[in-house]
Amino acid sequence: MTDPLLLVLTNLPDADSAQALAAHLVEARVAACVNVLAPATSVYRWEGAIETATEVPLLIKTPASRYAALEAAIRAQHPYELPEVIAVPVTHGLPGYLDWVRTETAPDA
Amino acid sequence: MTDPLLLVLTNLPDADSAQALAAHLVEARVAACVNVLAPATSVYRWEGAIETATEVPLLIKTPASRYAALEAAIRAQHPYELPEVIAVPVTHGLPGYLDWVRTETAPDA
Amino acid sequence: MTDPLLLVLTNLPDADSAQALAAHLVEARVAACVNVLAPATSVYRWEGAIETATEVPLLIKTPASRYAALEAAIRAQHPYELPEVIAVPVTHGLPGYLDWVRTETAPDA
Repeated sequence: MTDPLLLVLTNLPDADSAQALAAHLVEARVAACVNVLAPATSVYRWEGAIETATEVPLLIKTPASRYAALEAAIRAQHPYELPEVIAVPVTHGLPGYLDWVRTETAPDA
Repeated sequence: MTDPLLLVLTNLPDADSAQALAAHLVEARVAACVNVLAPATSVYRWEGAIETATEVPLLIKTPASRYAALEAAIRAQHPYELPEVIAVPVTHGLPGYLDWVRTETAPDA
Repeated sequence: MTDPLLLVLTNLPDADSAQALAAHLVEARVAACVNVLAPATSVYRWEGAIETATEVPLLIKTPASRYAALEAAIRAQHPYELPEVIAVPVTHGLPGYLDWVRTETAPDA
């Protein structure tokens, strides 16, 4: 049985914290590759009012078997008390790339 | 049974209409949080020729149970006759964040 | 049985190569629509060190039945030896838009 990949999304308050978290996740081998996207505007309700804030989205590639460790690493470093962390399943992909993600995130590598 | 989340994508023709739709969707409780991404270039075929257009992508977080209401709200406000609206399933996530999305989009909140 | 759609992601080293690949994929009818996102910063490990590089992400919409042809078209034109190509399933969407994607990518159209 191969270990399916996930595409995981989170948002940071600025480019510096986004870049720092991305490097930390790769360093800790809980992600093989992270894309730090251009700044976005997030819209949500807070205490009854519609708020907007600049945020920097991350697209994180990791195997499902590493999701729990990835989530723990995000929580430990993320400046928000309750950050967005959501994951969608990768059902197709270039086999060599999928294998590379698994190799880069092997805990005993 | 919990209500699984969806990550829903659509594209607007400019930042003003994107921001307005994002605020409307959160106000109407058909989305908990919307990320208005930096402008993108969309490429597609129209009447036999390859066209390009600037568009502003939205990443919308909502429960599957609210998808029909979200789609109707997008259609009612979107300037295109046939907008892109596609959704991918969220299979993992931070439990507190997933619960927040469900609470923010409860129809009787 | 309808043919489910995929949202496919890849990354190019600059806006020119991203735009050229997007146009090629639509021209070849292996994608109905491609969004060329604003430049991102990709973070990954290479030969033991954490590297960062600017990359331009593509979001590609195509039916699952066309995935193999799409992957082959990306590989044939992509400048990297082992590019990222991953796909996530589309489980909900505006029916008219989903049909448009299928029509635009029909091999004998």
